[in-house]
Amino acid sequence: MSLIVQKYGGTSVGSAERIKSVARRVAHWKARGHQLVVVVSAMAGETNRLIALAKDIQPTPDPRELDVVLSTGEQVTIALLSMALKDVGVEARSYTGAQVKILTDSAYTKARILSIDEQKIRGALDQGQVVVVAGFQGVDEAGNITTLGRGGSDTTGVAIAAALKADECQIYTDVDGVYTADPRIVPDARRLRTITFEEMLELASLGSKVLQIRSVEFAGKYRVRLRVLSSFEEEGEGTLITFEEDENMEQAIISGIASNRDEAKITILGVPDRPGIAYQILGPIGDANIDVDMIVQNVGHDGMTDFSFTVHRTDYQKALDVLAPVRAHIKAREIVSGDKIAKVSIVGVGMRSHAGIASTAFRALAEEGINIQMISTSEIKVSVVIDEKYTELAVRVLHKVFNLEQAV
Amino acid sequence: MSLIVQKYGGTSVGSAERIKSVARRVAHWKARGHQLVVVVSAMAGETNRLIALAKDIQPTPDPRELDVVLSTGEQVTIALLSMALKDVGVEARSYTGAQVKILTDSAYTKARILSIDEQKIRGALDQGQVVVVAGFQGVDEAGNITTLGRGGSDTTGVAIAAALKADECQIYTDVDGVYTADPRIVPDARRLRTITFEEMLELASLGSKVLQIRSVEFAGKYRVRLRVLSSFEEEGEGTLITFEEDENMEQAIISGIASNRDEAKITILGVPDRPGIAYQILGPIGDANIDVDMIVQNVGHDGMTDFSFTVHRTDYQKALDVLAPVRAHIKAREIVSGDKIAKVSIVGVGMRSHAGIASTAFRALAEEGINIQMISTSEIKVSVVIDEKYTELAVRVLHKVFNLEQAV
Repeated sequence: MSLIVQKYGGTSVGSAERIKSVARRVAHWKARGHQLVVVVSAMAGETNRLIALAKDIQPTPDPRELDVVLSTGEQVTIALLSMALKDVGVEARSYTGAQVKILTDSAYTKARILSIDEQKIRGALDQGQVVVVAGFQGVDEAGNITTLGRGGSDTTGVAIAAALKADECQIYTDVDGVYTADPRIVPDARRLRTITFEEMLELASLGSKVLQIRSVEFAGKYRVRLRVLSSFEEEGEGTLITFEEDENMEQAIISGIASNRDEAKITILGVPDRPGIAYQILGPIGDANIDVDMIVQNVGHDGMTDFSFTVHRTDYQKALDVLAPVRAHIKAREIVSGDKIAKVSIVGVGMRSHAGIASTAFRALAEEGINIQMISTSEIKVSVVIDEKYTELAVRVLHKVFNLEQAV
Repeated sequence: MSLIVQKYGGTSVGSAERIKSVARRVAHWKARGHQLVVVVSAMAGETNRLIALAKDIQPTPDPRELDVVLSTGEQVTIALLSMALKDVGVEARSYTGAQVKILTDSAYTKARILSIDEQKIRGALDQGQVVVVAGFQGVDEAGNITTLGRGGSDTTGVAIAAALKADECQIYTDVDGVYTADPRIVPDARRLRTITFEEMLELASLGSKVLQIRSVEFAGKYRVRLRVLSSFEEEGEGTLITFEEDENMEQAIISGIASNRDEAKITILGVPDRPGIAYQILGPIGDANIDVDMIVQNVGHDGMTDFSFTVHRTDYQKALDVLAPVRAHIKAREIVSGDKIAKVSIVGVGMRSHAGIASTAFRALAEEGINIQMISTSEIKVSVVIDEKYTELAVRVLHKVFNLEQAV
């Protein structure tokens, strides 16, 4: 008998039929003798409907009250799923974030989990109940309702799994696992049976929509065994996120190719090459609450250097506005920028011990006439910024050159 | 400075515009220096939408889980109204039933309030906040969410007013007070400035839709000063429900005429006139969970009597089924029955000290050719059962004969 935490997202519980289907799946696991905690999101579309209601009242809704509204989305789902479970003969009980006391800080709309009252959950499990918990929500020390921000239900699932020391945390979503590349771009992309936690973290932060990055960090911190599965398939083992490279006998050099078109690049040309210049440029950007992703500065010459970085496209104009006076102040020559870019990344723990990954990648891109605008590397990742129009081509070329379509 | 509890029903908060209008009204009272607790229902239509969602999952929804779903309706409204108040510059804070700890028993879908944590409400009021509380819901000793049943928001308002010893509990609804008769039936019906608690209780139980009967009972028990007002009118004093007849200088003999078409009558003819016969007839009816309203038994003769009573129309067929074997057992002659009846009632504390009210009423009905099928009286009420088709005529005739269109 294992203790398993399952999390179902909004699409998986998007209608009465889908909720009944989740109930049948849960019943199936229960029948095999497992203890089950099920975390659910709001029904697909519900959170957006509630936000619209709030904005009709107050264009910028009060954060405390917005959380009171939003938390009703998951509250409806837990009750409906519990009904569906009882309807197929499975004892079940719903719990809001307040009821299992998912204690968070008081940062409304983006609260962080501090602790979970595992005794209450354990008590219900020991009575043979399936415990159905509302994702995305909690309660602060004073009893105010809080929410964890978009994708927070994944974090709830992982946090409960960590608190209960569950054997596995299963994230059910609309894809059946983590792929070597987006199958819509690369038709012969292959589902990975396992991926390491570090690789998953890189993929999540690179824009893979499979898992929310905070939940992956949380899983890493508490060493929660995480599995991504499809809620639309009857069977399937999905992708297991492992902690040990050795746990993974099939380990390839490269696990996958990720791409993302959410960023814009900004380059300051002719920057005086002196200590503190990076801070003078990025300080005001940080002060304006703009997150910076890649940062590239090459070796300067003639006392001058060029400084580039990328920001999220929604912050692009704001960043340019912030930089205009900065450029004048530091006496840099000019700013060039563009938001028609894509970031393509090669991820794999195997590249640590293999030289030549980067050069293989750069050669393959060059042979297709794809110019590389920026390069950034980490121990298990190589990212390049290219013209947006080459995104799909670059992903396919890299997928091919590393033979990712072949199981190892 | 007074402490006022206001309760707004589903129609009063049925849209963003309506919620903003309620916020302006609350702001107006606050500006006059009053402390305010505002109790709200779910937006009109929301409770029915949630019930339909639940029934899509489970035809007879699990009561515990149904309450978890239903309570979200009011939770959305409290947050939206708090936003609307903040948007017009009024400090406000929402509270669910669990948050102000409206402690109830565990009778899901029809729970009864046991206590309210007034300290929490007082603390917020003392900080100058308008306290916005979800009606209709509470929490049991174990922390399970409960609901009070339809119309329960009125009861929440009255219970909070009782706990806080508020100066007044104002029930805002879509009518502007209690009338001498239904204005759709009697065009010159007059709004009552005051009505006694006993009269209101009779009117509520007679089918007047203005106030939920449990909230009136609750107000009576805790001597809460209750006022019914329209949320659709800017000004207006509504109808105050008083406890002292003497408080009411304008007291008329008759306060109003009520009517109701929800009942059916059953008569058992030729019943042996012996002790215990009433119990032998009504015992099985009670055992079948059928509520009986009027009961009439006249003086018998020749060792025989006739026995009549009325039940709700939805229980009519069930009552006949229960009675068939009873009739045979007690050797009564036959059962006659009908559901095309109406009950018309004259209510007024003044009739205690005035003889002749009943005879005036009966004469007026006779002059219009309306036959009286049953009569039942209490200290402050005379009810008659007549053919349903004469309902409006009877109400108008009685309204006229007692000169109710004239202010006293």
